[in-house]
Amino acid sequence: MSNHATDSGLLAPVWAGTDAACLVSDEAWLQAMLDVEVALARAQARLGVVPPSALTAIAEAARADRLDLVDLAVRARGAANPVVALVQALTAQVARIDPAAAEYVHRGGTSQDILDSAAMVLAARVLAGTERDLLRCADALAGLAREHRSTAMAGRTMAQHAVPITFGLKAAGWLTLVLDALDRVRQLTESGLPAQLGGAAGTLASYVEYARIAGVPGGPNHGADLMAAFADELGRPEPVAPWHTIRTPLADIGAVVAFVTGALGKLALDVQGMSRTEVGELAEPAAEGRGVSSAMPQKRNPVLATLIVSAARQTPLCAAALSQALLAEDERSAGGWHAEWQPLREALRLVGGAAATAADLCEGLQVFPDRMRANLDLTGGAVVSERLGAVLAPMLGKATAKKLLGGVALAGTGPFAQTLSATPELAGRLDAGELVELLDPTRYLGSAQLIVERVVARYESVLTCDLGRP
Amino acid sequence: MSNHATDSGLLAPVWAGTDAACLVSDEAWLQAMLDVEVALARAQARLGVVPPSALTAIAEAARADRLDLVDLAVRARGAANPVVALVQALTAQVARIDPAAAEYVHRGGTSQDILDSAAMVLAARVLAGTERDLLRCADALAGLAREHRSTAMAGRTMAQHAVPITFGLKAAGWLTLVLDALDRVRQLTESGLPAQLGGAAGTLASYVEYARIAGVPGGPNHGADLMAAFADELGRPEPVAPWHTIRTPLADIGAVVAFVTGALGKLALDVQGMSRTEVGELAEPAAEGRGVSSAMPQKRNPVLATLIVSAARQTPLCAAALSQALLAEDERSAGGWHAEWQPLREALRLVGGAAATAADLCEGLQVFPDRMRANLDLTGGAVVSERLGAVLAPMLGKATAKKLLGGVALAGTGPFAQTLSATPELAGRLDAGELVELLDPTRYLGSAQLIVERVVARYESVLTCDLGRP
Amino acid sequence: MSNHATDSGLLAPVWAGTDAACLVSDEAWLQAMLDVEVALARAQARLGVVPPSALTAIAEAARADRLDLVDLAVRARGAANPVVALVQALTAQVARIDPAAAEYVHRGGTSQDILDSAAMVLAARVLAGTERDLLRCADALAGLAREHRSTAMAGRTMAQHAVPITFGLKAAGWLTLVLDALDRVRQLTESGLPAQLGGAAGTLASYVEYARIAGVPGGPNHGADLMAAFADELGRPEPVAPWHTIRTPLADIGAVVAFVTGALGKLALDVQGMSRTEVGELAEPAAEGRGVSSAMPQKRNPVLATLIVSAARQTPLCAAALSQALLAEDERSAGGWHAEWQPLREALRLVGGAAATAADLCEGLQVFPDRMRANLDLTGGAVVSERLGAVLAPMLGKATAKKLLGGVALAGTGPFAQTLSATPELAGRLDAGELVELLDPTRYLGSAQLIVERVVARYESVLTCDLGRP
Amino acid sequence: MSNHATDSGLLAPVWAGTDAACLVSDEAWLQAMLDVEVALARAQARLGVVPPSALTAIAEAARADRLDLVDLAVRARGAANPVVALVQALTAQVARIDPAAAEYVHRGGTSQDILDSAAMVLAARVLAGTERDLLRCADALAGLAREHRSTAMAGRTMAQHAVPITFGLKAAGWLTLVLDALDRVRQLTESGLPAQLGGAAGTLASYVEYARIAGVPGGPNHGADLMAAFADELGRPEPVAPWHTIRTPLADIGAVVAFVTGALGKLALDVQGMSRTEVGELAEPAAEGRGVSSAMPQKRNPVLATLIVSAARQTPLCAAALSQALLAEDERSAGGWHAEWQPLREALRLVGGAAATAADLCEGLQVFPDRMRANLDLTGGAVVSERLGAVLAPMLGKATAKKLLGGVALAGTGPFAQTLSATPELAGRLDAGELVELLDPTRYLGSAQLIVERVVARYESVLTCDLGRP
Repeated sequence: MSNHATDSGLLAPVWAGTDAACLVSDEAWLQAMLDVEVALARAQARLGVVPPSALTAIAEAARADRLDLVDLAVRARGAANPVVALVQALTAQVARIDPAAAEYVHRGGTSQDILDSAAMVLAARVLAGTERDLLRCADALAGLAREHRSTAMAGRTMAQHAVPITFGLKAAGWLTLVLDALDRVRQLTESGLPAQLGGAAGTLASYVEYARIAGVPGGPNHGADLMAAFADELGRPEPVAPWHTIRTPLADIGAVVAFVTGALGKLALDVQGMSRTEVGELAEPAAEGRGVSSAMPQKRNPVLATLIVSAARQTPLCAAALSQALLAEDERSAGGWHAEWQPLREALRLVGGAAATAADLCEGLQVFPDRMRANLDLTGGAVVSERLGAVLAPMLGKATAKKLLGGVALAGTGPFAQTLSATPELAGRLDAGELVELLDPTRYLGSAQLIVERVVARYESVLTCDLGRP
Repeated sequence: MSNHATDSGLLAPVWAGTDAACLVSDEAWLQAMLDVEVALARAQARLGVVPPSALTAIAEAARADRLDLVDLAVRARGAANPVVALVQALTAQVARIDPAAAEYVHRGGTSQDILDSAAMVLAARVLAGTERDLLRCADALAGLAREHRSTAMAGRTMAQHAVPITFGLKAAGWLTLVLDALDRVRQLTESGLPAQLGGAAGTLASYVEYARIAGVPGGPNHGADLMAAFADELGRPEPVAPWHTIRTPLADIGAVVAFVTGALGKLALDVQGMSRTEVGELAEPAAEGRGVSSAMPQKRNPVLATLIVSAARQTPLCAAALSQALLAEDERSAGGWHAEWQPLREALRLVGGAAATAADLCEGLQVFPDRMRANLDLTGGAVVSERLGAVLAPMLGKATAKKLLGGVALAGTGPFAQTLSATPELAGRLDAGELVELLDPTRYLGSAQLIVERVVARYESVLTCDLGRP
Repeated sequence: MSNHATDSGLLAPVWAGTDAACLVSDEAWLQAMLDVEVALARAQARLGVVPPSALTAIAEAARADRLDLVDLAVRARGAANPVVALVQALTAQVARIDPAAAEYVHRGGTSQDILDSAAMVLAARVLAGTERDLLRCADALAGLAREHRSTAMAGRTMAQHAVPITFGLKAAGWLTLVLDALDRVRQLTESGLPAQLGGAAGTLASYVEYARIAGVPGGPNHGADLMAAFADELGRPEPVAPWHTIRTPLADIGAVVAFVTGALGKLALDVQGMSRTEVGELAEPAAEGRGVSSAMPQKRNPVLATLIVSAARQTPLCAAALSQALLAEDERSAGGWHAEWQPLREALRLVGGAAATAADLCEGLQVFPDRMRANLDLTGGAVVSERLGAVLAPMLGKATAKKLLGGVALAGTGPFAQTLSATPELAGRLDAGELVELLDPTRYLGSAQLIVERVVARYESVLTCDLGRP
Repeated sequence: MSNHATDSGLLAPVWAGTDAACLVSDEAWLQAMLDVEVALARAQARLGVVPPSALTAIAEAARADRLDLVDLAVRARGAANPVVALVQALTAQVARIDPAAAEYVHRGGTSQDILDSAAMVLAARVLAGTERDLLRCADALAGLAREHRSTAMAGRTMAQHAVPITFGLKAAGWLTLVLDALDRVRQLTESGLPAQLGGAAGTLASYVEYARIAGVPGGPNHGADLMAAFADELGRPEPVAPWHTIRTPLADIGAVVAFVTGALGKLALDVQGMSRTEVGELAEPAAEGRGVSSAMPQKRNPVLATLIVSAARQTPLCAAALSQALLAEDERSAGGWHAEWQPLREALRLVGGAAATAADLCEGLQVFPDRMRANLDLTGGAVVSERLGAVLAPMLGKATAKKLLGGVALAGTGPFAQTLSATPELAGRLDAGELVELLDPTRYLGSAQLIVERVVARYESVLTCDLGRP
C-alpha cells in the first residue's frame, strides 16, 4: 500500500511531467543527497582523510535505485529528517562492496550538511532550466514588442478603457518583467546557492577531529580546506562560513521564485483578459488537446495562462514559508528547518513549470490587431477624451473641460464623437477636421514606440551580456 | 524517467507513511475521482437516465490500477485539470467491457463536479482520522491534567520565570486547544463538506438535458433530484446550490486545518521548551531509532514535537491559499481553482500527520516533577515576588513594594530569600515563618486546580456527547 | 513631530472614515483598555476586594482623552506592550481624584488580561456592524436574485463563454456566500469572543491573593467568581479557563474575517468583470465623485468593487498571522503575542470597511439585461453547443458529435448557427425549427430558477431566525 | 469623531515613536505626494511646459499642513485612491495664491505616477535609516565576535546540547545575516527604487500632449525627457520604462524587508533562548523602564528581542502581499494596486523599527561567559561524545562506538565522564589523562575561531567599501 502513496503531479498540471518536476522528485533528491555524500568523501580523499579505496566503494554504492525510497521516507520520522536512515542504508550498501570502506561513509558528517548541500545543487539545476525558459520568453516577447510597436489597442485601467496604447508597449512591459526575472535568477545562481558544511553545530569540529585521527596536518585549517574542496566537488560556491542556521539561501530562493512566477503571472493574467470572448484580442497557441473542455465543444480555454496563474498564486506563500525559515533558533531549529523542505520543493517545481509553460505561451501567442482596433473604437472616441480635455483646457479651464467631456461620455445618448459635435459649449472651438484628428486613437500614443525601443535595447544588452559568458 | 518523478514523503517526515498521506496520494485521488464518476452514474441510473447495464460496466471499469497515473498527470496539462484525460481513459476502459456503456460515462458531467466532489470525499476521510487522533490526544492530556493538577512548576512568560503554575494546568491548556480542535473538525465534517454538482456553469442544464433525452420527466426538478441522489451515493451532505465558484468548503478546510495544527503546535513548542537540556522537565516517549542524531551519540531529540511544529508552520500558509480561493471570478476561475489542489492536499496530509504524531507524543510523554521543582527553586523564591508585592503593598504602597522587590531580585547578590531577609525596609514587617510560607511556590497556585477541573469536565462532556453519536 | 505620525486611513480607502476604523483606532483601543480596567475594578468591588469609593475614582479617571496617547505608545516599547504605561498613567489620574483609590488600580492584573479582553470587546463591536452590513447585502441580493431569476446571460468559465445562466443565479451565488459569512460572524460573536482573565500565568493567583488580603473568603474559588463577574461586566462570554496562551479566539477571528472579505471579494470580482467596457452588463451605483479619474473624463471606475477586492487580497494574510499566533510558547509568548495586534486591528478594519462598501454596492447595483442578452448572442449560438452535443450524441456518438461541433465553433468561418446548418454531417438530422429552438440560450437554463428559489428560501429562514433573536 | 480615529503605534511598540514610523505616517505620505507634484511641475518647468510663475505658486502651496488629512482620507473612497482628492485640494490652495497657476497643477498627471513615486521616495528614506542601524548592529556584532571568539558555550541543536561552539562563532553567524541584510538593502536603494511616470496607461501621452500645446518641440521624445527630469528632481533613478503595472520595486521591497527582519529575528530568538531563566547566558541592556512587568517585580523581560521577533513574524506576510502585487491585470489593476499600500507602509515601519531596536540590543548586549561554561558542563562531558565516537571508531567500529556512548549518555546513572570510566568495553583503551583531555569541551572547537576571522574579514571589507562611497 505505502508504495502507492505518491504524488506524481496529478493535482499540479503546471509542473506535471516537466523537467523541474523530475529534477526535484524524491528520486532526484535521494540521488542528490547520495551525490553529496560522495562529494564529501571525495573532498576528504583529496585531503587524505578518506583512503582512495573507500572512496571507490562509496562512489559505486551511492545509487538511489539501490535504496528503498519509501522505506527511507518512513524511517525519516525517527530522526525527523531522511539523512540518518539514508546514511545507514548507504553504509550497508558500501559494506557489501567493501566492509572497510563502510567506516568512511558520512565521516564527520551531520544531516544538515547533506540535506542543505543537496538542496542547493537541485535548486541550481531547476533555476538553470528556468533561466533558459525565461530567455525563450524574452526572445519571443522582444519579437512581439518590435512587431506590434504601433499596433493600437485600448489601454485598460480599473476594468475600463482608459487611453490608447500599443500592443508592442504591452509586450514590452511583459518583457521588462521577464528581464527583471532573469536578472534575479542569474544573480542567485551565480553567487547565492553555496555548498553548506559545518558539522553538528557549525564548528567543523568532527571533520577536524577525523583529520587529526587520520594524521592529516592543519588542525583548524582543515575545516577551511574541506569546505573549499567540498564546494569544488559539488560545483557550488564556497561559503564564508557554515550557514546551517543562517538561512539566507532559502529566503533568497523563495524571493526569486515568487518574483519569477509573479512576473509571468502578470503576462498570463493579461492573456486571459485579452482572450475573453467579448475581447478576443489574443489567443493561446493551438495544440492537440489543449484548451478543451470535458463538456463544451466550442471551448478553447486559455490553459497555458491558467497554469501559470495557478503557480503565481501559490509561490508567494512558499516564499513566506522560506522567509520564515530565517527564524531558526540555536544551532539547528527544531521545526523551522524541517518546515523548509516541502515549500522549497514546491516553489522550485512551480517556477520551473511556470517558466516552461510561459515559454510555450509566448512563442505561440496569436495576436488579432483587427479586434484590438475594433475594441478601441467601441466607445466612439471617448477613449481619447483625456486628450480633448487637454486641448480644451486653455479654452474652458481644466475643470470645466473635464466636466463637459465626462458629461458627454457618460450621457450614453449616442456615439461620443457625434454627441460631442452637437455640444453647444464646443461650437466654434474645434473644426470638424481637427476633431476627427483629435479623436483618432492612433494619434494619441505618446511615447509608446520610444519606450518599446528602450525596453528592446535593454533586452539586447542582456543578450549580449549572456553571449559573453563562458 | 517520468515514472520516477514522485513524491513519497521523503521531505515530509511528519506525514510520510501515515494514513493521511495514503488517503490523499495521487492514487487515492484518482480512485476518488473514479468513484465520483460511478456515483454520478449510479445516481443517474436511480433516476432512469443511465441504463443498469451501463452502470455495471462503468462501476467495473472505474479502477485506478487500470489507468496510467503518470500519463494522466501529464495529459492534465492540456485541459489544465486531470478530469478530461481521466474521462477519456475511463471511457476507453468501459468501451472494452461494453461499447454501448461508454456513451454513459460522465453523462452531462463537468470536470469540476468530479474533482470537487472527490476532494470532499477525501477531506472527510482524512478529517475522520484526525478526529480519532485528537480524541487520543484529549484522553491522554486529560489523564496528565488530572494526575499533575498539583505538580508545581515554573510558569514562564517572555522567556523568564513568572509565577508558579502546575503541570496539570499546562496540560489542561493543551487539552483546551485539542477540544477546540475537535469541535471544529466535527462541525466541518458533519455539515461542511457537501457534494458538488452543477454542470458546466452551475445550472445543471446538461444533466437536465440528458434526462429529457432519456425521457425522464421532471424538467428542471431533475437537477434537484440528481443533486440529492448524487450526494446520497457519495455519503456527503447535499448542498443548497452548486458551489463551483462558491468556495466555502475550501476556505473552511483551510481554517480548520490551520487551527488543528496550530493547536498541536502550541503543545509541541512547550514540549520542546521543557525538554531543553537546561530544563529537562519533559521527555518524549522513547522508541527504537527515535530522536537519534547522525553524529552525536548522546542526543535524544524531541522529534515528535519537531515534526508537529514543522506542520504547524506550514498550514497557515496553506489556509491562506485556500482562503484566497474564494476570489473565484465568473462561473469558473482561470487559475484560482487550479491553485487550490496542491495546498488542499498538503494541508490534509499535514493535519493528518501532525495529529497522528501528537497522539503518540501525548500518550507517551515522560514527566519529571523533580526537575520541575528544582527549576522552580532556581531563583530562590523570586518566582513568588508578585505575591510578596501584594502582601507588602498595604504596608509600603504598591509602587514602593514593587520597586523594593525588583531591586532585591535583580541585585544578584545572593539568593532572593536571604537577601530579602536582610533588607532593612522589611525589618519587623514579616516574621521568618511568614516569609517562608510566602516564599513557598506551592502555596501560590491560585485557582490552578479548579481550572484543571473545569477543563476536564469539558472534556468529559465532549466524550459523553461523542459516545452518544451513532 | 511625533504627534503627527499617525495613520488615519489615507492609504486604506476601503476603511477610511468607516465605523470600523473608528471602532479600532488607537483612541478606541485605549478607551477599551481603560474600560477593561474599570470592569475589573467593578467585578472586584462586587466581590468585596475593591472598596466602592476606589471604584468610583477609577471609573471617573478612566477616560482616554485624559491620557497622552502618543506618549503611551512610545513608552509601550519599555514593556513591549502598552498596558504597563497605561496602568501607570491611570494610577496617576486616579491618585489626583483619590490617592487611596490609586492602590486599587489594576489590582492583581496582568497586561494580557487587559489587552486581550479589550480586543474581544472591540472585535465584537466591529463584527456586530459587519453583521448588519451583511444583512443589507443579503437583502439586496435576494431582491436581485428574485427579480432576475430568468434574466439570461452568458455563463463564463476560464475566461470564455460556457453555457447560459441567469443573472438571478449569479446573484444567488453571491447571496450564498453572504449567508455563509453571516453564519460564521454570528457563531463567532455569540460564543467565540470570551473575556480573558488569568493573572500573570493563568492561575489567577494574584487575584486570589488580593482577595485573601482583603479578607474575602473563597480561596481558589474566588478565581472562578472573578472570571464570571468580570466577563459579566464586559458583556462577553465567560471562558472555561484563562486563554492567555490558548489563542483560539484570535485564530477564529482571522478565519472569519478572511472568509467574509473573500466572500464579498468574489462578488466584487464579478462586478468588475461584468462592468468591463466590452461587457457592460453591470454598473456600480453612481454618486457624486465616485469612480472618477484624475485625468480621464469618460471614466466611471468600479471603485466600490475595487475597494472590496483590495481588502479581500489582504485579509488571508492577516488570518495567517493570527493563525500563527496559536504557536505561543510557555505562559506568554515572547513575540508571538505582540505580533497579533496589528494584524488583528487591520483585519477588523478591513472586514468592517469591506462589508459597509459591499452593502452600498449591492443596494445600488445597476443591471443591464439588454447587454447580457447581446453578449449571450455574440457567439451565434455556440454558447449552447454543449446542448447540441447531447442531442447529437445518440445519433453520432458522443465523441464524434463533440468533435464536429467543436470544429464548427472554432472554424470562425461565420456565425455558428449558419455554419452548422450547412454542415453535411447534420443534413437531415435536425430540422430548422428544431435547430432554432436548440440554439435559443434561454431554453437551456437547466435548474437555474429552481436553485435561485432554494437559495432565497435559505435567506428567508436566516431572516426568520434573526427576527426571533432578542 | 473622525479626527480621533488614528493609529499612532499603540499596538506596534516595535515601531512606535521611531524614525521609520514618522517617515511613513499619513502626514509624511501626504507631504511626499505633494513633493512629487512639485517635482513634476519643476521638471515640466525645466522643459518649458509649465511657466516659472506657476511653479512658484505650486511649490509654495504644496504643504501638507495646509490640507485636511482626515478629509482627504475619507474622500479617497470616491476614486479608490487619495490622489484625486489631493489634486483638487492642492489646486484650490494654488488658486488662492495664483489662479492662473492652478491650471498647471498635476499637468498631464495620473494618480499612479504621484502615489508610486511618493512610495519610492519614502521607501528610500526608511531604508537609508535601516542601513545605518544595520551598520550599528554589524559594528557591535563584529566586536562581540572578536572578543568572544574563544568563549566556549554549548551548541544547541533541536533543543538539546549538541557539541561545543564559541559565543564568538554565534555572533559571527548573526553578523553574517546582518551583512547579508546590508547587501540587500544597499542594492535595492541604489538601483531598485526608481521614479515612476507614465500617464494614464504608460504611454506618457498626456505629458506629450501638454508639451505640444505649450509649443515645446520633441514630440514623443518629450516623454523620455520628462521621465529623466522628473527622476532627477526626485533624486531617484530613472526607469527604462513606466512601471505602473510592472511592480518589480514593490516585490523587491517586500523581499528585502522580510529578509532584514528575518535576519534580525534569528538574532533575537537566540537572545531570548540564551536569556531564559535556566540558561542565563545573555541579558539585554538595562534601561529605565525596560523589561518591566505590570505585576512581577523580579521580571526583566527580553523586550528588545521580543519587539524584533514581533516584527519578524509579520513581515513575511507583508512580503507575500507585495509579491502578489505583481499579478496586476491590464494597465492598472482594480484592487491589486490598492492592496499594496498598507502592507508596504507596515513593512517599512516594521523593518525600520526592528533595525533601530536591534542596534540598541546589539550595542548593549550583556554576555555571561561563566554561565556559558557552567551550562556547557551540565552534561558532564556528554556534549563531546561525538568526539569520543570518532576516537573510538577505529577501535570499536563506528556503529558500536556510537551505541556504547549513547547508552552511557542516556543511562542517567551518573555523570557521563564517571560512568564512562567505569564502562568495561573501554577498559584499557583510553587512559585517564587522555579521557580528561577528550572530555574537555574547550578542546573540541574545530575551526570556530578561524570562521570568526573569515566573517570579521568580510565585515571589514564591507566597511571599507562603505567608506569608499561618497
